[in-house]
Amino acid sequence: MTQSKPDLKVGLIGTGFMGKAHAFGYVNAAQVFDLPVTAVLHRVADIDLAAAEAAARAFGFAHASADWHDIVADPDVGIVSITAPNALHKDMALAAIAAGKHVYCEKPLAPLAADAQDMASAAEKRGVLTQVGFNYLCNPMLRLAREMIAGGELGEIRGYRGLHAEDYMADAAGPFTFRHDPRGGGALADLGSHALATAEFLLGPITAVMGDLVTVISERDDGRGGRRRVEVDDIGRAFLRFGNGASGSVEGNWVATGRKMQHDFEVHGSKGALAFSQERFNELHFYATGDAPGRQGFRRIEAAPAHPPYGRFCVAPGHQIGFNDLKTIEVAGFLDAIATGGAEPFGFRAGLRIQTLVEEIKRSAQDRCWREVPGP
Amino acid sequence: MTQSKPDLKVGLIGTGFMGKAHAFGYVNAAQVFDLPVTAVLHRVADIDLAAAEAAARAFGFAHASADWHDIVADPDVGIVSITAPNALHKDMALAAIAAGKHVYCEKPLAPLAADAQDMASAAEKRGVLTQVGFNYLCNPMLRLAREMIAGGELGEIRGYRGLHAEDYMADAAGPFTFRHDPRGGGALADLGSHALATAEFLLGPITAVMGDLVTVISERDDGRGGRRRVEVDDIGRAFLRFGNGASGSVEGNWVATGRKMQHDFEVHGSKGALAFSQERFNELHFYATGDAPGRQGFRRIEAAPAHPPYGRFCVAPGHQIGFNDLKTIEVAGFLDAIATGGAEPFGFRAGLRIQTLVEEIKRSAQDRCWREVPGP
Amino acid sequence: MTQSKPDLKVGLIGTGFMGKAHAFGYVNAAQVFDLPVTAVLHRVADIDLAAAEAAARAFGFAHASADWHDIVADPDVGIVSITAPNALHKDMALAAIAAGKHVYCEKPLAPLAADAQDMASAAEKRGVLTQVGFNYLCNPMLRLAREMIAGGELGEIRGYRGLHAEDYMADAAGPFTFRHDPRGGGALADLGSHALATAEFLLGPITAVMGDLVTVISERDDGRGGRRRVEVDDIGRAFLRFGNGASGSVEGNWVATGRKMQHDFEVHGSKGALAFSQERFNELHFYATGDAPGRQGFRRIEAAPAHPPYGRFCVAPGHQIGFNDLKTIEVAGFLDAIATGGAEPFGFRAGLRIQTLVEEIKRSAQDRCWREVPGP
Amino acid sequence: MTQSKPDLKVGLIGTGFMGKAHAFGYVNAAQVFDLPVTAVLHRVADIDLAAAEAAARAFGFAHASADWHDIVADPDVGIVSITAPNALHKDMALAAIAAGKHVYCEKPLAPLAADAQDMASAAEKRGVLTQVGFNYLCNPMLRLAREMIAGGELGEIRGYRGLHAEDYMADAAGPFTFRHDPRGGGALADLGSHALATAEFLLGPITAVMGDLVTVISERDDGRGGRRRVEVDDIGRAFLRFGNGASGSVEGNWVATGRKMQHDFEVHGSKGALAFSQERFNELHFYATGDAPGRQGFRRIEAAPAHPPYGRFCVAPGHQIGFNDLKTIEVAGFLDAIATGGAEPFGFRAGLRIQTLVEEIKRSAQDRCWREVPGP
Repeated sequence: MTQSKPDLKVGLIGTGFMGKAHAFGYVNAAQVFDLPVTAVLHRVADIDLAAAEAAARAFGFAHASADWHDIVADPDVGIVSITAPNALHKDMALAAIAAGKHVYCEKPLAPLAADAQDMASAAEKRGVLTQVGFNYLCNPMLRLAREMIAGGELGEIRGYRGLHAEDYMADAAGPFTFRHDPRGGGALADLGSHALATAEFLLGPITAVMGDLVTVISERDDGRGGRRRVEVDDIGRAFLRFGNGASGSVEGNWVATGRKMQHDFEVHGSKGALAFSQERFNELHFYATGDAPGRQGFRRIEAAPAHPPYGRFCVAPGHQIGFNDLKTIEVAGFLDAIATGGAEPFGFRAGLRIQTLVEEIKRSAQDRCWREVPGP
Repeated sequence: MTQSKPDLKVGLIGTGFMGKAHAFGYVNAAQVFDLPVTAVLHRVADIDLAAAEAAARAFGFAHASADWHDIVADPDVGIVSITAPNALHKDMALAAIAAGKHVYCEKPLAPLAADAQDMASAAEKRGVLTQVGFNYLCNPMLRLAREMIAGGELGEIRGYRGLHAEDYMADAAGPFTFRHDPRGGGALADLGSHALATAEFLLGPITAVMGDLVTVISERDDGRGGRRRVEVDDIGRAFLRFGNGASGSVEGNWVATGRKMQHDFEVHGSKGALAFSQERFNELHFYATGDAPGRQGFRRIEAAPAHPPYGRFCVAPGHQIGFNDLKTIEVAGFLDAIATGGAEPFGFRAGLRIQTLVEEIKRSAQDRCWREVPGP
Repeated sequence: MTQSKPDLKVGLIGTGFMGKAHAFGYVNAAQVFDLPVTAVLHRVADIDLAAAEAAARAFGFAHASADWHDIVADPDVGIVSITAPNALHKDMALAAIAAGKHVYCEKPLAPLAADAQDMASAAEKRGVLTQVGFNYLCNPMLRLAREMIAGGELGEIRGYRGLHAEDYMADAAGPFTFRHDPRGGGALADLGSHALATAEFLLGPITAVMGDLVTVISERDDGRGGRRRVEVDDIGRAFLRFGNGASGSVEGNWVATGRKMQHDFEVHGSKGALAFSQERFNELHFYATGDAPGRQGFRRIEAAPAHPPYGRFCVAPGHQIGFNDLKTIEVAGFLDAIATGGAEPFGFRAGLRIQTLVEEIKRSAQDRCWREVPGP
Repeated sequence: MTQSKPDLKVGLIGTGFMGKAHAFGYVNAAQVFDLPVTAVLHRVADIDLAAAEAAARAFGFAHASADWHDIVADPDVGIVSITAPNALHKDMALAAIAAGKHVYCEKPLAPLAADAQDMASAAEKRGVLTQVGFNYLCNPMLRLAREMIAGGELGEIRGYRGLHAEDYMADAAGPFTFRHDPRGGGALADLGSHALATAEFLLGPITAVMGDLVTVISERDDGRGGRRRVEVDDIGRAFLRFGNGASGSVEGNWVATGRKMQHDFEVHGSKGALAFSQERFNELHFYATGDAPGRQGFRRIEAAPAHPPYGRFCVAPGHQIGFNDLKTIEVAGFLDAIATGGAEPFGFRAGLRIQTLVEEIKRSAQDRCWREVPGP
């Protein structure tokens, strides 16, 4: 009997992989964290009613619907999770916002920054909280990195290199998918967006960009016996300038053969440096110029209870959290913000910001010239 | 409404860290796997009733008790999880077995092999299934390693090196704890047991051992203003012979400064080799003599859907599972065995086996001579 | 008595660190390789006669001079090594070429591509052979990488990332040096040039560049009690297009705190990938999509006799060659070309090429636009 | 003209790989170090006169002989290098010692400790200096490790793990060689000896051992159409006790598939730890418990001028020395000791010590019981 905590009834739209991840996230967040609110799996919607009912049973939702409008219309629902196809995000989110629900939407928020702008503004006007799923930022080691930078352990920040490279589009025989759609797709939008989010998470606002977009596999099987021309980037690169005076570069790449999760960064400051790879995301490598002469070197810091919220998952260092635990941290942060009225960890405006950066880089690449980026 | 699946009501004894881990394990196993049974959190017991009630609320148990006998006596309970202090494992398990419950007991099963023997025999006689928590074995990369060895990818197995080293007892100022109790404690029993379990999991039965036990910190603060002599090992080593003809070595060490989770192994065969470290447990390094000349080398295989049950957690390679996911796999395996009547993944007899190996090594170290080990 | 091999008398200009390295290179090349010519240390020149005489004694030169013209005028000298300050390279090289000597000049060949052009043309007209010291290319693992790419083991090459980052200019308290001279200096010219050389060594000609140059430490101690404005780049980046259709990026950075020798690359092809770091330059990491499913991963190939000319240095794999051995390979390659009339490993025209790339990138960064680069 | 330095004329016995390595060592040591003596390549002997003459030409010796006695008898020779087959070491060394020459002998000094004892005693009686080739100890990073341990940076030393594993005997189809000879051969003597030398180099005297020797490949091709039984160990292990109170283990293994140079160690102290692998021998990994909380981790110290004598080879950190440079350091240390009358870096008595340890371990393995080892 959780009488002391208010209930927050969850409506989930979509029952695919990300729908499942959201459902688990709510359950796990309650288990792992001592949250001031109790998320209750209330209603799940899928255009295929049988799928919705199966998901209700499997995940523990009380109700199932074939129409997502049921969720928005349900007065009991306090928070709406949107894991439907990207093209539907905007309509769903605006309806939920209009109904006064908090909204948790998978990335990308919307194909175009202009849409994301509408969504963020609507939420702010209505006074509901929002969240976009940028889960790599939830890693305790990234939080540590940010604190070390903010706390001056690296001194003045000078240079940055960021990456997000995978190889899941490297096979030229793979078919044309919605990710290849010119409206919002491409490696920069899909993966580079993560690298951009990490860059600003660590160093603060990017102020100028120069992009370079390349299509490597120029056409793909259209699934109907023909070929379809690919107009999005397979590799997106950018030079960056930051408001803190640093410069850097970033790459999003989905044809990086052999790489499964190369979400890496290296940051150099006047007093120290950090190196990180998502391939080993329970580690952060730290170099301090202040170490004794002849004893300097990148030290491999292993995730430990000293790096919150790692201790919520494991009581001892070195045991390691997994990818799904990042999702749990993400959900917990949002629920906590809702319950306490605190700041959203990564709201629609933050999602809009990433969308904006992606679009500025794309435009810059198209125009082949640098672009100033307005502040977030 | 999971009408198609039978319920299995869970009774949990103990509400500490491992109690929490078991509760999560049942919930997560249901989420992640499509199990043929539905585990229902039914009753939790703790000698402190308030703690039991708090745990019931936090984890979602229907009932709370101050007396663990209530769980054993509850006819609805089908499975009992024991996470109480080691000294109580035997009584609790025997009572649960007598009541016809399946039993899931944390490691070590009992301080002495003779006790573990009683427990294993009782369960077999009563026809209930049992499980001991050796979760490192649940790693998909260990399962892969075992399959590669069994499938002949490494050829004839020749040599083995195993380790489990941490540093959580390295501070000489740390107090005397129950782990320093001569009856069942020490680094070999606590950590070396994991290394032994992995060794047999991969190579099959150990047939002879020669042990070496060392106490590094000879006395500790007794918590009452005095000092207490430490009689258990801080480092336990052993030479090994395996039934498959290979030889090897193993070390358990809890004063290994700097190491948090050095559960490592290396195995050399006539056609290949494997190297593994729990510090990066989503990787397995594989060397194949059959690779082309000049192109040979240890290759870093990253955990992927090709390595079941990784795909249950992440749909893409390289995302990584965490320590708690190993627990989820452990629970799922046990529930599946119960529901399907399949083989227990790591039952009491397997736990007894590890206990036996530990005791044989201790005796060998004491007698300073090799000992033959009877088959499991 | 090396009667069967012709002598090649060496004249060395400069007795500093690189002078010493050249002298050793000649001696070591003769020891390690079975060269068709015998390099004889004949005459060494340094503006400081005492230094020249000390070097003659220490390194084993027969004669010492205070004037480098003595070397050029000496009819016995067949090859001239130039390790004097960069500003003097051109005059010395042109004089040596005019006298019909083969010339081995340290990098950078000359501050400006135009000068390098004059030098390369003069040598070609006179029919003498030349060499510039790009020793990282002499690594057997780079040669292996090139052969694997050329041989199609990676399939169609798609993406490239190259780096050369160090931190030896990261201390803002460090003085203004000749490397900060606007005429030819900067991180791109000094370190990025190596990354560019490696990029073309592996993938062939670069056809277009877009540069980004940043000065991080804007002024430095002028050594005379004042401050001097730094006009060269501390970080130089570029986007690249290659003639083979691939795209890529490159970075030269001398303020990369913590990095001592981050001459790294990663190259992705349709059938495989390579990853390399000069920090561990006896290793090459190779990913093959053709490996068995579930067994794929970057494999760490260790330098071995299978990778010529490693076997000249060590008869067994894994022993590792050192930085100075790269210099030995460099010298041996040049001597072999002279003796056999073969192709120069990295002649003045190749050095000019790198200079040209550096200048194109600088111009591109200045103009903030892409530049086409004429073929080499 | 090195008039200020005395000459030391070298006589070399043997012209194979190690003979070449010695010849290079003398030349390189003079180049790299500012030694107080000039080693002059004077006379080389090989039972095959043509080989001796070819070596004289190739390496630069003034004289060649078919009989090694010529070297011992040559009054000009001051130092004798012995690289002939092991079985001849003793006679050659005793003759050279009797003639008053300093002696540099390849490892193993002699098949039996008793022989090594005779050699060491003879040298001491005659007052000549001696050297055995344990070149891994010459690594600046091992010297650093030793200084850190001796200087108390790791606190009280508690545990040690040492290895030397390779796979050059892993192919069961490989023939029987002199290394398989029961008199002195085997993996423990051949490779384990290096691990033992490193163990004592770092921690000081071993006081007790318990060995475990295993023959994996029981017979091999005898080269004459038959099979020959292998009586030496393919894997040799030992538990160790050290005079400083620490315990440890060591392994020598020449059937460790995939390993080319796994000369590794890990040492744990009360205040810190070190981890090292010869596979990356320009790095030493150091963990300090005194690092700030949440910032602890093994730090990768890269070889640098701060770690003498690295700076003799490279003026900047991270460039890396190679295996042959270790040989150069070894030779330089010996020449310096001869010239200055300083302590031999690793004389015959030190070689005897290793031989003694190997024999004690072998005996212990045979008797299956621990053995006390007398001090060195």
